[in-house]
Amino acid sequence: MMYNQEQLSELATFYKHQLLDDTIPFWFPKSFDQEHGGYLFMRDADGSLIDDDKAVWIQGRAVWTLSTLYNTIEKKQEWLDGAKLGYDFLNKHCFDSDGQMFFHVMRDGSPIRKRRYFFSETFYVIGAAAYAKASGDQAAAENARRVFTKCLEYANTPGLLAPKFSGLRPSIGIGVPMILMNTAQQLRDTIGDPRCDDLISGWIDTIEKYFVKDDIECVMEQVAPDGSIIDHIDGRTLNPGHAIEAMWFIMDIGNRINDKNLIHRAKDIMLRTLEYGWDNEHDGIFYFLDVKGYPPQQLEWDQKLWWVHLEALVALAKGYALTEDENCLQWFEKVHAYTWSKFKDNEYGEWFGYLNRQGEVLLPLKGGKWKGCFHLPRALYQISKTFESI
Amino acid sequence: MMYNQEQLSELATFYKHQLLDDTIPFWFPKSFDQEHGGYLFMRDADGSLIDDDKAVWIQGRAVWTLSTLYNTIEKKQEWLDGAKLGYDFLNKHCFDSDGQMFFHVMRDGSPIRKRRYFFSETFYVIGAAAYAKASGDQAAAENARRVFTKCLEYANTPGLLAPKFSGLRPSIGIGVPMILMNTAQQLRDTIGDPRCDDLISGWIDTIEKYFVKDDIECVMEQVAPDGSIIDHIDGRTLNPGHAIEAMWFIMDIGNRINDKNLIHRAKDIMLRTLEYGWDNEHDGIFYFLDVKGYPPQQLEWDQKLWWVHLEALVALAKGYALTEDENCLQWFEKVHAYTWSKFKDNEYGEWFGYLNRQGEVLLPLKGGKWKGCFHLPRALYQISKTFESI
Repeated sequence: MMYNQEQLSELATFYKHQLLDDTIPFWFPKSFDQEHGGYLFMRDADGSLIDDDKAVWIQGRAVWTLSTLYNTIEKKQEWLDGAKLGYDFLNKHCFDSDGQMFFHVMRDGSPIRKRRYFFSETFYVIGAAAYAKASGDQAAAENARRVFTKCLEYANTPGLLAPKFSGLRPSIGIGVPMILMNTAQQLRDTIGDPRCDDLISGWIDTIEKYFVKDDIECVMEQVAPDGSIIDHIDGRTLNPGHAIEAMWFIMDIGNRINDKNLIHRAKDIMLRTLEYGWDNEHDGIFYFLDVKGYPPQQLEWDQKLWWVHLEALVALAKGYALTEDENCLQWFEKVHAYTWSKFKDNEYGEWFGYLNRQGEVLLPLKGGKWKGCFHLPRALYQISKTFESI
Repeated sequence: MMYNQEQLSELATFYKHQLLDDTIPFWFPKSFDQEHGGYLFMRDADGSLIDDDKAVWIQGRAVWTLSTLYNTIEKKQEWLDGAKLGYDFLNKHCFDSDGQMFFHVMRDGSPIRKRRYFFSETFYVIGAAAYAKASGDQAAAENARRVFTKCLEYANTPGLLAPKFSGLRPSIGIGVPMILMNTAQQLRDTIGDPRCDDLISGWIDTIEKYFVKDDIECVMEQVAPDGSIIDHIDGRTLNPGHAIEAMWFIMDIGNRINDKNLIHRAKDIMLRTLEYGWDNEHDGIFYFLDVKGYPPQQLEWDQKLWWVHLEALVALAKGYALTEDENCLQWFEKVHAYTWSKFKDNEYGEWFGYLNRQGEVLLPLKGGKWKGCFHLPRALYQISKTFESI
C-alpha cells in the first residue's frame, strides 16, 4: 500500500491541524511567564506544572518555534509577543559574565547550572535570528550573528570551554558540525549571513569525511580526529536519531543549492540508518546502539524517544519529496502508524516523550529539561509543508 | 512461610557457595591484567572483554573485595597478589598531579577523565585499608589514612572541587555522608583510625537530621542545607537503593556500638523504604522515584538494578539477625526469590546488572564503568556471614 496524491494532501492537512489545533494550544498561552518572562515548560501529562525552573535550551528553541510560526504560518500577535517574552528573558538572565550561556536557571532567571558545551548558544542563535525576522528588530539580528561568532570560536578553539576529558584519547562528535550546520542554515534563511555558505559546505564535508562509514553502513556519533572508530564503549556508540536528523538537515541544504547527488546520498544514508536502528521485535527506533553489537552503555538504549521518531518522519517526507524514492514513503507509513498510535496523548493532547521498548509510556511528562515546544511543532510544520509541496 | 533454623543455615551455605564457586571464579584470574596491572572488568555476559579501559571506582573496590576475602575467608595467595596488582595500579596511574584521582583511565593507566567528586578516593581508601590489613604493608595503611584526610577536606571545603552548580540553590546529598560513613567504618575495622568514631556519629546525625523524613516516611537523596525538601524535579528525587544501603551501614555501626535504638530505627526506615520502592506490578525495586509522585527525571527510573536488590538483601538479613523482626525475613524471602530468578545468569555465572521493569535482561554485560567485582561479592559475603551468625 502506498499513499496516493489525495492521501498526501490529507496528510499535509492532518499534520498542520495537529500543529495548530493540538500542539501549540497545549503549550500556549499557559506557558508564557508574564511575571518573569520566558516559558514555564516543565509540565505533567495534563499540562500541570511540575517544576517552575527553566532549561535554557528549550527557552531558545521555543523563541524559534513561535517566531517561525509567525514567519511562515500567520502573523499572529500572540506568537510575536510570545517570542519576545522568551527572547528578552534569554538576554536578561541566561548569559554569564564571561559571555557563556547557562544551561538551567530558576523561574526568575537566577542561574543554577552552566555546562561545558555551547548548545544553549546555538539555540539562542536560531531563536534570535527567527525573532529578528519576525519583529524586524535589528539588534536581535546582530545578537544572533554575534553569538553565532561565539559558537564558532568555541567550536574552533580547543580549551576555550573547560574540557571534560584529558585529551589523551582525542575524539570529535557529530553533534557540533550537525547543530552548527542547522544553526547556520537557519541564520541564512532568516536574516542572512555571508559566512554561512562556506561554513555549511565545510560541515557537510566533515560529516561525510569523518562520520559516515559506508563500509559498515553506519553514521558514527564520535570518532578519532582522523575519522577512525574508537574501539571502546563510548566510541562505538551509535545514535540513530541523531544521524537521521543530520541527514534531513543535509537534504534541506542539498535542495537549497540544488545538489541532487548530495540529496540522494543523504536520503540513502538516512534509510540505512533507519533500517539498522529499527526494533524489529517491538517496532520503533532504538535510542542507542553499539556499532559492534555489544551492549551499549546507556541504560535508556532501548527506549523510544519522541524526537527520534519525529526526525525520522521529517527525513522520510523530505526524502520522498526530493527523490521520489518509494522506500521513503513506505517507511513513512510505518513510522507514522507507530508514532501516532504510541506517542500521541489522546486525553490531554501533545505527545509523550519517552516510551519503553514495548512502546508503553515510560514517563508521562510533556515537558522537562529537554522536551518543550520544539521538536514536535518543528516536525509537524516540516512534514505538512513538505507534503503540501508535492 | 518463614525460614526455619536449618533453612537459614542452608542459605548461609548457598550464599557462600555463590561467592566462592560462582562470582569470584567468573572474574578471576581472567581479569588480572598482568601486563599493565589493575583489572580488566568491562565484560560481556560470557566474560569476554568488550573494552580494556579501567574505571577507577571499580578498580579500588576490587582491591577491597580481594583483600577482604583474604582477611575474612582464607589466606589465598592469589587473592593477596591480586589485591596488590590493583593497589599498585591505583598508586602508579590513578592520581592526578593535583592529588585528585581520575575516574576513567586507559588499560595502561593513561587518564581519560576526572570528575568533580571524590568517590574514586573513597574507594581507594577502603581498598588500601583492607590491603594494608591483608599484607601488613604500613605504607598502604598510611596511604589509606592520608587519602581519607583528603576526602574529609573535599567534603568540608566548598569550592575545593570545581562545583557543578551556581550555589544559588544550595543542596546537600546523602551520598557523601553515607559513603564517608562506610569508608570510615572500613578504616576502623581494618587498620583503625582514631578519628573515625566521632566522624561516624556525626554522619549518622547528619543523615537522621537532614535526610530522613518521618512525616512522609521517606529518605531524601538531596535536601537544602537546612534539611528542607527542594521542590523541584532534582530535589524531589528518591533513590530507594541508596537509602536501603545507608540503613545497613547504620545497622552495622549500631551493632558495633551496641545501640539497639539506632539499629531498630535503621531497620524500620529500611523496611518503609522497601515498601514504597517496591514495584507492586512487576516486582523488584524501582531505581528512582519522585517524592510527590510526579514523573522522575531519570529515563532509567523503572529499571531493576543488581546493586539495589543486593543492598536490600543485606539490609534484610542484618535487620532480622539484629532485631528478629519477622517482616525482615518475609521480605528477604520475596527479594531472594525475585533476584535469583531474574538477575542470576545460569549460563555463564555471575549476575546481570540491569533489568527492565518487567525483569527481563536489559543490558547483558557483566562489567562496565560501574559494575565490577564488588556489590555482588560483598553482599554474598555479608549475607552468608549474617545467617551463619544466627
